[in-house]
Order: sequence, then structure tokens, then C-alpha cells
Amino acid sequence: MRKIHVIGIGAGDPDQLTLQAVKALKSTDVFFILDKGAEKDDLVQLRRDLLGAHRADGAFRVVEAPDPARDREAGGADYSPAVVDWRSRRADIYERMIADELGADECGAFLVWGDPALYDSTLGILEEVLGRGAVAFSYDVVPGISSVSSLAAKHRTGLNRVARPVQITTGRRLADGGFPEGVDDVVVMLDAHQAFRQYQGGVGGDMYIYWGAYIGTADEILVSGPLDEAAPRIEALRAEARERKGWIMDTYLLRRNLG
Amino acid sequence: MRKIHVIGIGAGDPDQLTLQAVKALKSTDVFFILDKGAEKDDLVQLRRDLLGAHRADGAFRVVEAPDPARDREAGGADYSPAVVDWRSRRADIYERMIADELGADECGAFLVWGDPALYDSTLGILEEVLGRGAVAFSYDVVPGISSVSSLAAKHRTGLNRVARPVQITTGRRLADGGFPEGVDDVVVMLDAHQAFRQYQGGVGGDMYIYWGAYIGTADEILVSGPLDEAAPRIEALRAEARERKGWIMDTYLLRRNLG
Repeated sequence: MRKIHVIGIGAGDPDQLTLQAVKALKSTDVFFILDKGAEKDDLVQLRRDLLGAHRADGAFRVVEAPDPARDREAGGADYSPAVVDWRSRRADIYERMIADELGADECGAFLVWGDPALYDSTLGILEEVLGRGAVAFSYDVVPGISSVSSLAAKHRTGLNRVARPVQITTGRRLADGGFPEGVDDVVVMLDAHQAFRQYQGGVGGDMYIYWGAYIGTADEILVSGPLDEAAPRIEALRAEARERKGWIMDTYLLRRNLG
Repeated sequence: MRKIHVIGIGAGDPDQLTLQAVKALKSTDVFFILDKGAEKDDLVQLRRDLLGAHRADGAFRVVEAPDPARDREAGGADYSPAVVDWRSRRADIYERMIADELGADECGAFLVWGDPALYDSTLGILEEVLGRGAVAFSYDVVPGISSVSSLAAKHRTGLNRVARPVQITTGRRLADGGFPEGVDDVVVMLDAHQAFRQYQGGVGGDMYIYWGAYIGTADEILVSGPLDEAAPRIEALRAEARERKGWIMDTYLLRRNLG
């Protein structure tokens, strides 16, 4: 029976690998890597470095495939046709890679940035492949340090306040749906449009922000402070970094002052 | 200058330590441990095993103090006098341990189950100690695999669905405030009263639950399924385990079917 590890590899710092992840890396015969194009070359290199650090034996294969292009704008809506289509094309690729490149008794792995449980499609796509029934395999999941945990640690703050909830959501949700009901701590991921800006000037309450980009890597940028003060700095730093590097991955915690 | 690491050590599986946590453990002179009483002996032992596994050199000290009793019932309310009083008594202990037991150039550490950013008081208490000004130190935070990530990995599910939010909250909030507005995926921690039971029979929608106790340890129990089917099994298993071991730590994801 083919076996697959879905391995959370942390938010960018190679030392965020868990001992469990290292063991899983070491028991893998074939690593499957979806190449997201030129702008993500840095991430591909980070991943290669991880393998180099823990698999000096060279006794593994790497199978790369181009990631199908995704219409990000259309893809923001839930289960929109664009998302369904993209997942289905990705499932085609996974299915082919597993069927063609993984021997019957071998172990394959997908390396996932952060934690496979948070805003990642790998598990859903593997379930889709299994559901099709054309290729059989078992799989397990190795949890990873998410960019959310990493952000909080770098800012040395909790995500929740005492006995209170925290919500993790997307930039689009925050932009379209407003500040979530009944919550004063909101973590925002996948925000291409800096939805935090709409809360400047006391909109929704007295806000504080903890922001980070490229967390855990050499390019890491951290900003925290009262939103009105921090937002213009974040905008400027974000634009400059995005221009310089060609891509950006950032996350933030927006916290309403409870007074 | 005294230095302190706040180290997330994962949800119970010793292999959930990150490489960063192992390095921090190895650079620590003094480990501070708050003893929570007999019912948590298992956890104290797990912690000792971690130290034994990574610090065979024995070149460290362990300073233990009794954890001040907390009125859990009263303490559920936000910033209630009981919580404020408990934090303040804990801050007294931390302050004394750091001042008396940590040399001026030494490094101390607090080992935190899961992730220090999620429902843990260590960071808040260290800030309180610093604010008092009686003892100076710098500190950093090493993020850990939370029981939330661990639960999701064991059940091989994501926490959020595509482009949708997830809320992390407490059992008391779920019991008192109902299912949070605008969210269909809710992770519940610190639930002594199994608030999920109130959603049986289709209350709030068609619910599915992913539950786990003692996740990552030899005692781990996992149950998942449609809520009506799983709830009675969870209740029975939970009561039996709690009786047998004298304590329980469990977490669950309550997911509303989107149809």
C-alpha cells in the first residue's frame, strides 16, 4: 500500500520543524512539489534547504509539477466555480504524480508551509483523489507551526485574551463582512488588500495591530502598535517589500481594546 | 541581564517539540515548573521525560513551586476578581522564582503545553512581573504545536473550510453565548461541561464533531462523526477516562454542515 505524509513544515524558519516532521522527512522516498512559478522561487529554495539539511543521504526523489494557475480574484468566493475547477485540476496532478511516481510500497510526502489544517488545500485534494478511486493510498498528517502561532510568538502576545475567543479569517471576509460579531481578536490571513485599513480612525472601536511578513525568514518584517499609527507604516513597508521581492506573505492580529 | 524562554512544547507527544524548542531547552540553566497538584502528575512526568531526553548532560536546575489554587468556576468570567487575584498570586511566585533562583547572567525557561499564544497565562503573568519593576529580564517565545493543530492533524481535517473563518473559543462561551455568529467551524477548549451536547437533535444546524482527549499521549482518545451519533460516545468515554485518570484535557471542533 502506498503511504503519504502531509507534513507541516512551519512558517519559514527551518528550526520550526518538529521532531515528528524530521522523522517523517527521513522516512520519505518521494517528495511531491508543486512549483508556483517564479515569484515563489524563494519558497522552493527554502524547501530544498530543508531537505538538504535533514536528508544528506540523498536517498530520495523529488517530483515537481507546475501548479495550475488559479484565478485568485474569482477564487475568493466560497466554493465558487473557479475554486472547484482549480481543486479538480490540482487533484488531476496529484493523482498522476502518486500513480506514476510512487512505487507500491513507497512513501511519498507533501511539504506544507505552516500547518496543513489552516488555509491549505492539500488534505481536501488528497480526499478528492481518494474519492475518485483510481489510485489507493493511506496518509497521515504532521501538524506544523502556523504563521499565526509564529506571528504571536514574534510579538510575544497571546491570540486570545483571558477566557475570550479568537477568530481566524481571510482578508476578503474582513473586507466584505466587517469585524466579526462577538469577537475582539481577529487573525487575518490571505489579505491582498489590507482590509485592516478600513478600521482606522476609530471605526469599530479602538484597534491595535500585530503584523508580520515573511515571518521566520531572513526577510521578516514586524510592526505592532495602535492601528492609526501602525497602518501607514505597514502599507509603506508592505509595498516596498512586495516590489523588491516580487511576492509577499503576511498575517496580522487585529485586536479591539476592551477599555 | 537575566533571560527567559517561554517554550511551547506541543500537545503531549514529545516528538512535537520543534528544533527551535530543543535548542532553547539546551540553552536553559533553570527550568521553572508550577506544580498543579496530584491530578496533573502525569503531565509533570511528561515534562521531566522531555528534559531527560534532551538534556542528558544534567547541567540544569529545576525550580518547582506549588501553583496557587484557582477558583475555576468563578474564574470563567472575563477578568473577574477571581482571575485577577489568581494572576497576581501567580505573578508573586514568578517574580520570587526569577529573583531568587536565576543568576544575573543565566537563562530560565517556562515550558508551556501546546502553544503559549493560546489559552495560556504565562505571557500575561511575565508582563505583570516586568510591570512591577522589582526584577528585570528579557524574554522570548518559542511557538508550539497547539492541541488545536494536533486535533486537526489526528483527524486529518482542516480547521477552516475554503475561504471561510474558524473561531477558537471556550466551553463556557459556547454554553452561554451560543454558536458564534457568522462562523460554521468552532474549536472549543477548556470545556468542563461538554457544551456540544446542546447542539444535538439539529439545534443550530446539522453538526459534525471531531473530538480528542490526551492528544498525542499514550492515553489518546479520538472520536469523530455526526454529532447526534458521536455525542453519547464522547460523554461515556470522557466520563470513564476522567474517572480512571483523575483528570482530562480535551478539545473539539464543532462543524456545521454547509449542505
